[in-house]
Parts: sequence; structure tokens; C-alpha cells
Amino acid sequence: MTPAPVPGELFLAEIREQPDAIMRLLEHEQDFDAVSRALVERKPSVVRLVGHGTSDAAASYGVYAFGLLPGWTAMRDSISLTVYYDAKLHLSESVVIALSQSGETPDVVEYVARARARGAFTVAVTNGPDSELGRAADATLPLVAGPERAVAASKTYVNQLAALALLAGGAAGRGREIGDGLRRVAELLAGALDQLERAVRPVATAFAYVGRMYVIGRGIEFATAREVALKLTETCRVAAEPLTATDLAHGPIAALDALFPVWTIASRDESLPALVDAAARVREAGATVVASGNAAAEIEGAAYSLPVPEPPTPILAPLLSVVPGQLFAGALAHAKGLDADRPVGLTKVTRAR
Amino acid sequence: MTPAPVPGELFLAEIREQPDAIMRLLEHEQDFDAVSRALVERKPSVVRLVGHGTSDAAASYGVYAFGLLPGWTAMRDSISLTVYYDAKLHLSESVVIALSQSGETPDVVEYVARARARGAFTVAVTNGPDSELGRAADATLPLVAGPERAVAASKTYVNQLAALALLAGGAAGRGREIGDGLRRVAELLAGALDQLERAVRPVATAFAYVGRMYVIGRGIEFATAREVALKLTETCRVAAEPLTATDLAHGPIAALDALFPVWTIASRDESLPALVDAAARVREAGATVVASGNAAAEIEGAAYSLPVPEPPTPILAPLLSVVPGQLFAGALAHAKGLDADRPVGLTKVTRAR
Repeated sequence: MTPAPVPGELFLAEIREQPDAIMRLLEHEQDFDAVSRALVERKPSVVRLVGHGTSDAAASYGVYAFGLLPGWTAMRDSISLTVYYDAKLHLSESVVIALSQSGETPDVVEYVARARARGAFTVAVTNGPDSELGRAADATLPLVAGPERAVAASKTYVNQLAALALLAGGAAGRGREIGDGLRRVAELLAGALDQLERAVRPVATAFAYVGRMYVIGRGIEFATAREVALKLTETCRVAAEPLTATDLAHGPIAALDALFPVWTIASRDESLPALVDAAARVREAGATVVASGNAAAEIEGAAYSLPVPEPPTPILAPLLSVVPGQLFAGALAHAKGLDADRPVGLTKVTRAR
Repeated sequence: MTPAPVPGELFLAEIREQPDAIMRLLEHEQDFDAVSRALVERKPSVVRLVGHGTSDAAASYGVYAFGLLPGWTAMRDSISLTVYYDAKLHLSESVVIALSQSGETPDVVEYVARARARGAFTVAVTNGPDSELGRAADATLPLVAGPERAVAASKTYVNQLAALALLAGGAAGRGREIGDGLRRVAELLAGALDQLERAVRPVATAFAYVGRMYVIGRGIEFATAREVALKLTETCRVAAEPLTATDLAHGPIAALDALFPVWTIASRDESLPALVDAAARVREAGATVVASGNAAAEIEGAAYSLPVPEPPTPILAPLLSVVPGQLFAGALAHAKGLDADRPVGLTKVTRAR
């Protein structure tokens, strides 16, 4: 007899599996390298990243991975423009990277089919290489995150970041360095999980009655802010909105008060001063600040600090800095009596257009 | 003696001034046409739109205006990549359109200076042609929204949309048609304001205790969703998050309940079916739906309907569909006893990085 499921155990198990998932992806390093070389041959004027939900958060990371490693312009493309409006865009100098856990997201599949027909070189990155998306694209790369049984994604996200870092690194002639960096990230993460799991519990207890939060990151960590906000919304019924440090000052700061916590992601890179300034403004507004990221210690006056290890190269920081947010979402769902594995109203494969 | 200010009167007066503001912009049609011709000569591979806050919401509209009118790829560019990370992007085939009410937003000015040095053709669109931004760009176009005294922008936003529509229309050889369309939009808006102002009041009364909302739009109306959410956050201390119709299904739907209203923007175009589907899912989740836009009547089961007139060409719909949201923000601030003219923690010119 199968034992009754414990609410949230699948989500937690998959968060804990992330170091192994990264190592599985690295078994396919050569496949990524081959596609990177194909991208370089195309000399793309634009890399178009498409995906929904968690995959769209990962796409935000891709903007920075391609911008910082090969120095290419990458964008989260509008799916609507191509799929609904049938806009007459010039795509023959474009590369498309389509992100979908299942490979069955209808309008991502449709986007790829149309972009390919217009001359774009299309790459699918998915757990389902035999999916509709896998068949629609010129090239398909496996995410090998393994079966994801919790509805809210975790290991898929981290492997999407790893995949984008490998592709962008390969395009910059730095694929080997990024691959080695990812191996080190997997080790660092495996070593940090236990302590982080304990550290998020008191934060979850303190925030059990919170209905809204902001999650702030800038630059490479904006993707992390988007993904953490999405986890909190999906699993904890919190209206959590991701903001860049500067977005916050242009309006949302006015909504803050003592009952409106702000989760900050501070990593050691060129955007850190902007993040530190934003956190100071949040504190002045009376809101409770949680500091995460490898530079969490730089955020003064944080009520809670959840530092993560520093990776060998700054571009890989988001693979580590998302983890406290994932664990916190699981712990907060538990504190609120919700089942993080099966949020009401969500399904694993979203077919909504 | 100056009479004591009535809270919210400046914000409301500026919303009501929008038809006149559009007409003032149209006095500069030739300037816009000249810049459009310069853009066409550059044959840009990418149009990079930059701005913060309301200007960034307008940039979302620019993605669709350029995508649908001349069929050009436009993107909301990452300011961080250029200003903080100094990424080595190839910009000589790019056009930059920088949006700033004051023209003094520090990192927008810095972005333009750097992009211009790297060979981009840079255009500033601002109420302050003599501002730092105006001096930094290759070409400067006036917004002529006139002095904006309320902290939360309204007429600046509508004129930013008009400016982007004129530029994109000119690039498509349809500048005259768009100009004439804007004249008609100004008339339609002037005729609709009184009735809309009355219609939002009962919605504001009903939502006086609401702390969080989602605002849903897709395609050309995603900009409207972003701007309405920003107004609610700035003036009403509501945690309002903008979502595309599809974003909603990929997570946030799980957070909805009867106390979590959803504002929908439904305009008659190719993305309408996706919006109608999303609104149906919102209702199934038990949330209260407000329907706005020129196709508000297509949203079944809405608790409130705030239709606006249909413009002569669909691309101009967002200039009308934002207005119920602006008026609602003013009315909700009033219902909550807040001063929409002077939100706590905000200033007219945001210098935050």
C-alpha cells in the first residue's frame, strides 16, 4: 500500500534533488556545446527567449547570460506578436530559444513553428525532447531534470538556468569554464541545503499571516526575484510581485508598510549598490526586510538573513540564490496549512493560451 | 490666498486634461515625422525602449506599436546590462527610444549616453527637451503634456503612447493615418470622460478595503495593465500586479479568492479570445471581475463593466482603455481617505538608481 502523501514532500524532495539534476544536465555538455557552435555560425542579431511561468523567469536570466557572456542582445520575446497578431517581423537573423518543462505549452509550440517558418534558427530546451516542442524546433536540448511531480517547478528552473549558462558560455568560447563552474555550484548547493532548510523555518512562522510581498532583485538576479515571487504565489497564495530595485522607487514604495515584507536578493556584482539602496528605502518605509543571496550580509537592518555560497563566477549566482526562496515557499505553505505539491487551480502542464 | 488643496484634485484634473494634451502633441506631428524618417534610414535591427515606472509601461506599448506598424523588432531593453554591467553589446544597428517625463532619470540618461557612444541612434521623448536626457540624445521629441503637478502620471503616459504610435506609424508610412486617428481618439475621450468618472465611483466604494488586485491585459493592452496596476499601487496602496492573460494561468490563478478582485482590459483585436478565457478562469476561482476596454461587454459575469469607445484603428485602443483605470485609482484613493496627488514616499522626479 502506498503511504498517504505528506503535503509538500514532493516539492521539498525536488528542491533537494537540484544538485543531482545539475550533474545530470552536465552529462550532456557536448550537446550544448554543439548547439552553441551552431548559434555562433548564425551570427544572430537577436536571441529571442520564449516561455511562460517558471520558463519565462528563466528567460530573464537568459537576457543577462547572453548579454554578459558572448555580448549578444537577447530578449524575452512577445509570444502574442507572432502567435496572435501574426506580426511581419524579420526573423532570419534571429535565434529562438524556447523553454518549456513539458514541451507541450501550446503557444510556445506555435511560436516556434511560426518563427522557424520565417527563417529563425529555433532551439527547444525541455524535459520532453519527444514533445510537440521538441519536434517543432531545429534543435532540441534535454533538460534532464527528471520527472517533476510537484506542480510548482524547482529543479526544472535551476536546470533551465544551467542550460542557458552553458549555451551562452559556449557562444562566448567559455563553455568549459561554465561547465566546471556548474559542477562547483552543484557541490556548493548540496553542502548548503540542510542549513538553509532550517534557516527558512522561523521566517515562515513569522510570515504565516502575510498576504502580499515584494521580491526585489536586479540584473542577473531579477530572474530570481521573478521565480521566488511565482513560487510564493503558486504555493502560498501570497500576492508576491517581483520588482527591480529601481522599479520599487518608481511607485511601489508607496504601498509599503510594516505588514508588507520585502524579500531581497543581493549578490556580489555590479548591480549590488542599487539593491542595497533599494533595501534601505524599504526599511525607511517601515517594511520588514529579508536578505538573501551571497551578499545578504550587505543588506543592513534585515530582520532575517539567508546567505548562500558564492559561485566561482558571478553569472552562476542565481542558481544558488533562488534556493532560499524555494525552501521558504515550501515552509510558508506548510505554516499556512497548504499543500505545496498540489496548489488549488494549477496543473502540471498548463494548456491555457 | 491660495485655497487649501482638495486631495486628489490635481490627479483628476490631469486625467481630464488628456484630450487637450493629445491635441498639443499633434501640433508637433512634423517633428515626429522627421524622426520617423531618420529611423527608417537607419534600418534598425532592434528598437530599444528604455524608461522606468510609467515610462516603462509605455515602452510595453512601443513593443507592439513597432511590431505591428512597421513590423520592426522592439524590446524593453535592460538598463542594467548597459549601465551597471557595461555589457559589450553591438548597438550600431540599434535605435534607442528613451522615455522620461522629466528627462532627469539618472540611469536613463546614462544609458542613452553609453548607447550613443556605442553607435546607436538615440531619441529622447520627454516633457523636458532641455533636460539632461534631451541633451544626451541624437534627437529629442517633446511630449508637451504640460506641467504635471500630481505625483502619479496620467497625461504623460497617454502622450507617450501617442508619441510611440506616431513614430511607429511614420516608420510604416502611415503617420498621417495615425495622426488623424489620434485626433479622433482625443474627441472620443473628451466625450467619454464624464460618464466614466461617474461609473468608477461604485467600484471604488465596493473595493475600499481591498489590499491586492491583479490587472490583466494581453498584447497591446499589456501596457495598460502595467500602467493601471502602477496607478493603484502608487495612489491607493494596493498591491496590484499586472499579468498577461497567460501569465495568470501559469501560477497566480492559485492565489485568487473572493476577496481578490481582478481588473481586466478587453479590447477588440486578435488577443481578445485569450483575455476572455482568462476572465472565465478568474470567475471560476471565485474572484470578482471588473471588465474595461472597448470589448468589456465580451467578458461574461463581470461584476462591473467600464466600456470605452472603439478607436478608428485598434493600435490606438490603449489610449482610451487606460482611462477607466486612472479614474478608478483616483476614486479608490478618495474612498480610502488617501491623497492621490501626493502619495507618501514618492516624488515627481525619481532619482533612485
